[in-house]
Amino acid sequence: MLGKMKRILIGKPMKSAELDAEKLGKWKALAILSSDALSSVAYGTEQILLVLVAAGFAALWYSVPISIAVLGLLVILIFSYRQTIFAYPTGGGAYIVAKDNLGTAPSLIAGGSLLVDYILTVAVSSSAGTDAITSAFPMLHDYSIVIALIMIVFLTIMNLRGVTESASVLAIPIYLFIFSIAILIISGGIKFLAGGMEAAAPEFGTSMSHVSLFLLLKAFSSGCSALTGVEAVSNAIPNFKQPAEKNAAGTLMLMGCILGAMFIGITLLAYGYGVKPDPKATVISQIAEATFGRGTMYFIIQGVTALILFLAANTAYSAFPLLSFMMAKDKYMPHMFMVRGDRLGFSNGIIFLSVMSALLVVGFKGNTESLIPLYAVGVFVPFTLSQLGMMIRWIKVKPSGWRVKLLVNTIGMLTTLSITLIFIFTKFTQTWVIFIFLPLVVYVFMRIHRHYCNIADELRIDIQLEKPVRKGNTIIIPVAGITRVVMNTISYAQTMSDHVVALYIGFDDEAIRKMEQKWEEWNPGVRLVVIKSRYRSIMGPLKKFIDTVEWKTAETDHITILIPQFITKHWWQNVLHNQTSFMIRAYLINYKDVIVTTVPYHLNR
Amino acid sequence: MLGKMKRILIGKPMKSAELDAEKLGKWKALAILSSDALSSVAYGTEQILLVLVAAGFAALWYSVPISIAVLGLLVILIFSYRQTIFAYPTGGGAYIVAKDNLGTAPSLIAGGSLLVDYILTVAVSSSAGTDAITSAFPMLHDYSIVIALIMIVFLTIMNLRGVTESASVLAIPIYLFIFSIAILIISGGIKFLAGGMEAAAPEFGTSMSHVSLFLLLKAFSSGCSALTGVEAVSNAIPNFKQPAEKNAAGTLMLMGCILGAMFIGITLLAYGYGVKPDPKATVISQIAEATFGRGTMYFIIQGVTALILFLAANTAYSAFPLLSFMMAKDKYMPHMFMVRGDRLGFSNGIIFLSVMSALLVVGFKGNTESLIPLYAVGVFVPFTLSQLGMMIRWIKVKPSGWRVKLLVNTIGMLTTLSITLIFIFTKFTQTWVIFIFLPLVVYVFMRIHRHYCNIADELRIDIQLEKPVRKGNTIIIPVAGITRVVMNTISYAQTMSDHVVALYIGFDDEAIRKMEQKWEEWNPGVRLVVIKSRYRSIMGPLKKFIDTVEWKTAETDHITILIPQFITKHWWQNVLHNQTSFMIRAYLINYKDVIVTTVPYHLNR
Repeated sequence: MLGKMKRILIGKPMKSAELDAEKLGKWKALAILSSDALSSVAYGTEQILLVLVAAGFAALWYSVPISIAVLGLLVILIFSYRQTIFAYPTGGGAYIVAKDNLGTAPSLIAGGSLLVDYILTVAVSSSAGTDAITSAFPMLHDYSIVIALIMIVFLTIMNLRGVTESASVLAIPIYLFIFSIAILIISGGIKFLAGGMEAAAPEFGTSMSHVSLFLLLKAFSSGCSALTGVEAVSNAIPNFKQPAEKNAAGTLMLMGCILGAMFIGITLLAYGYGVKPDPKATVISQIAEATFGRGTMYFIIQGVTALILFLAANTAYSAFPLLSFMMAKDKYMPHMFMVRGDRLGFSNGIIFLSVMSALLVVGFKGNTESLIPLYAVGVFVPFTLSQLGMMIRWIKVKPSGWRVKLLVNTIGMLTTLSITLIFIFTKFTQTWVIFIFLPLVVYVFMRIHRHYCNIADELRIDIQLEKPVRKGNTIIIPVAGITRVVMNTISYAQTMSDHVVALYIGFDDEAIRKMEQKWEEWNPGVRLVVIKSRYRSIMGPLKKFIDTVEWKTAETDHITILIPQFITKHWWQNVLHNQTSFMIRAYLINYKDVIVTTVPYHLNR
Repeated sequence: MLGKMKRILIGKPMKSAELDAEKLGKWKALAILSSDALSSVAYGTEQILLVLVAAGFAALWYSVPISIAVLGLLVILIFSYRQTIFAYPTGGGAYIVAKDNLGTAPSLIAGGSLLVDYILTVAVSSSAGTDAITSAFPMLHDYSIVIALIMIVFLTIMNLRGVTESASVLAIPIYLFIFSIAILIISGGIKFLAGGMEAAAPEFGTSMSHVSLFLLLKAFSSGCSALTGVEAVSNAIPNFKQPAEKNAAGTLMLMGCILGAMFIGITLLAYGYGVKPDPKATVISQIAEATFGRGTMYFIIQGVTALILFLAANTAYSAFPLLSFMMAKDKYMPHMFMVRGDRLGFSNGIIFLSVMSALLVVGFKGNTESLIPLYAVGVFVPFTLSQLGMMIRWIKVKPSGWRVKLLVNTIGMLTTLSITLIFIFTKFTQTWVIFIFLPLVVYVFMRIHRHYCNIADELRIDIQLEKPVRKGNTIIIPVAGITRVVMNTISYAQTMSDHVVALYIGFDDEAIRKMEQKWEEWNPGVRLVVIKSRYRSIMGPLKKFIDTVEWKTAETDHITILIPQFITKHWWQNVLHNQTSFMIRAYLINYKDVIVTTVPYHLNR
């Protein structure tokens, strides 16, 4: 039943050899890796205007130079990550770069904040998408948590089905979004140049004495939230078709151009149309309405924007499992993140990401907006570490033209560092958590690492010197009577060893006497030991007996407990039988170096 | 932790030999077994008046002859059960008597309806006690289900602590109740004879044409609800001190006298005082108020009455586990009801009773009154069957004076049968469930019985002819690498058999080649078989391999799968390791006649 459900939802298992067919070309990669970055266009300009409007309508003209600065940073980031891709062609997210150049602790900080960030991304963007839906259909408002969870489940299933299949489905809305924003910008630009606008733009270049540097920096850093998601490509190089690094670099450049064009286009239009931030209508909505009126085109743009906010979560679904795989390979995360599922994705990473983000959605009751500053810090910390790593690499390796490369990364590092600090200090009430959470996550990574190393040390053998040693085997069979199951078990025991003893634990003298007599009559070739249990407990006397045997023979023999057990034909029949053997097993497995074996006898009726 | 909690709540474990010290003398037995019967006094008279008042105030005089008839039935029942006690000194509830004289089906009907009845008793009386509490403290009304559940938990713990301890605690309220009702009857009687009453009694002996025989029968059967619980003593004979049957018979007579005296006393006073049934004040409350006024004595009587309604449930707690023990011994109920717990009670029966009644309380949201008619039918069905069984016994055995005994039981049987039928037909809307439920319960008993008999047949061996047969043993060790755990497992395997093979399931050619090479270098004396799993599944190839081995060797060899497994020092460390061995075990245990053994290696770090 469950198996069938799984087949329908996830699809048939795939052979390992099919892995290459699952790899991404440029266009599919753009669809799957850019949704996070491109969706930022929907709110990037607005974030800048929201800060500036505090200094009055006239200050809004600053949005243009600030956006150009953001664009500059985008160019730096793109080139910086392009350098990283070629330097680390097997996948070079912030984690790898930091590990390679900065050492363990910085790499764990980078990896930890990225992992947490991906979880936040899914939570925030599924809530944002739900808000878009409930704004359109207010009667669904009571079900917003359920809707967000359904979305997470949908993304989970898509990603469990496999990378390319999810790319095929997701490509449509992403390209639709790019296409419709392009039409918006072109049509809006033509309309503006044709002079069809009534609202006047704030005068460009007005010098305003009360606009502080702090305000401008804050506006700049808010605008930088449009850059989150840019790192996704460099993490995902292993998912690309060969030549992977070229394809990845191409995808990155493509994404950078589209993102930059859309971002600056929207900002210019917003300035030209004199758009003010309005809690009831987004900037995109205002521009679209001014350009097309409330017609079909307006609603298409609104719908596609809502959809893209949703799909931003999908970038996390391709990045999280890959990063957790790499960290698991380095023994900083549990092994289970290394297992490829039926459809060749890292299923455990996908499922873990879904569960954690679903918990966040439920925990914050769908109001995940307050997580956004945390999320931005979580992005810019690894940005900074990654740039710093690259700087050190250039200084160490010194390839041709390294001075230019170093300069690019240094400017990038200083900018992202500043943005991180601005974020932390301007929104400390929401971001302080990171000072508790990040060290905790790093500590857990370290503990996991130590555990794996300890175990590896303990389990490693010198294959030249250490070989299996033959010992004896003393077998104890707890019996409750003389039945076919017991006979079967004794027969099995006799194949294993000549030191076999049956143990009967009786509750009263009468039962013990009868058992002894019957055993003698049966004479199965195995000695019977009887113990009287005055407290009607099986475990106590059994434990004592094992201790005695162990004390006598542990040097020379293994000790094996063989438990005779019949297996009923139907599981519900188990209610009718005492689960003594199960209890003995559960009790002894953690207790001593004895080997507990259940010898099953399958009933036919 | 859990163990400590258990010790505090339940007490230290007791030796089997202490069982005799847990046996009951007459006075403790009266306390523990009579609460159900005696509590009926609190509502028996009222039930009669409630039916009669439909024919007008003047008809209430019929309550006196009807109560005398009920008293007559009580005498018959007491003598009838006294006969049963001596005929079945090892415990003779309706189940035993019916089994012995009427056959399987009637005995299962008797046993089934009693078991269901005990569950209903606990549910109804804990709800009734809660009603008494919430009437006194209305602010607790919202918590009534919680209060009822707390009461059930309290009774559970008392009974898990053991029979005598629960008797000691329960004796106080019971004797207080008997004592205060006695004072009420005596004081009330004196006051009546002194002529201090203003209200006039309905004239005795008025002939009323519209009082039908049906109404009188209905009133009589309602009055008979005062007799529920009388059977408890005969079920519980094994709990009595030696000589058990004499003590039991004495307790029964004592209980009969007290019950009869209290019941007829209350009825006469109610008639004498001209009490009318009133939804706002019970009959006892009216009599007590008329006798003492609303003083201390009035409140003591009210409080003790509420308490006794609660404790009526306790009779079920001594009867249910005993009856389920007997039926489990006869293989009609699961074996687990035969296990004596730490304090020598049948813990599973006690816990099962609590859980089922708690479910009823929650399911009916504490409004369990509608269950009362069902409950009465559930009592009188086994009454009737028990009497019928005794009749047949007298006819078969013919001891001295059997004619008188037969007469007693025949009258008893006819009366209880009539009451059963009256109950069923006058309240069919509430009692029809019994026609579905009883057959269902009996069917389940039969199925359980058949299951146990089948298994016993299948497991039984002829100890003269069937002896264990020595076979070979082929051992398969799934390995994932060369570690200390694997070495330990191979060492163990070599003590068992010379046919040992290690199985490596690899996901790619590279890993397989490396493993083969390393194995050859190690040369542990065991052959390595490698299989490539294209779908990255362990189970599929393992299963196929086992099938092949089985096909080759099943005739001559047992097949054993030895699973190397390290046991981490702390349980939470298991998160860090794939639970492959657990999965293999779970998968194979139900699948084939192979023996799956986990060879544990305990880690130190």
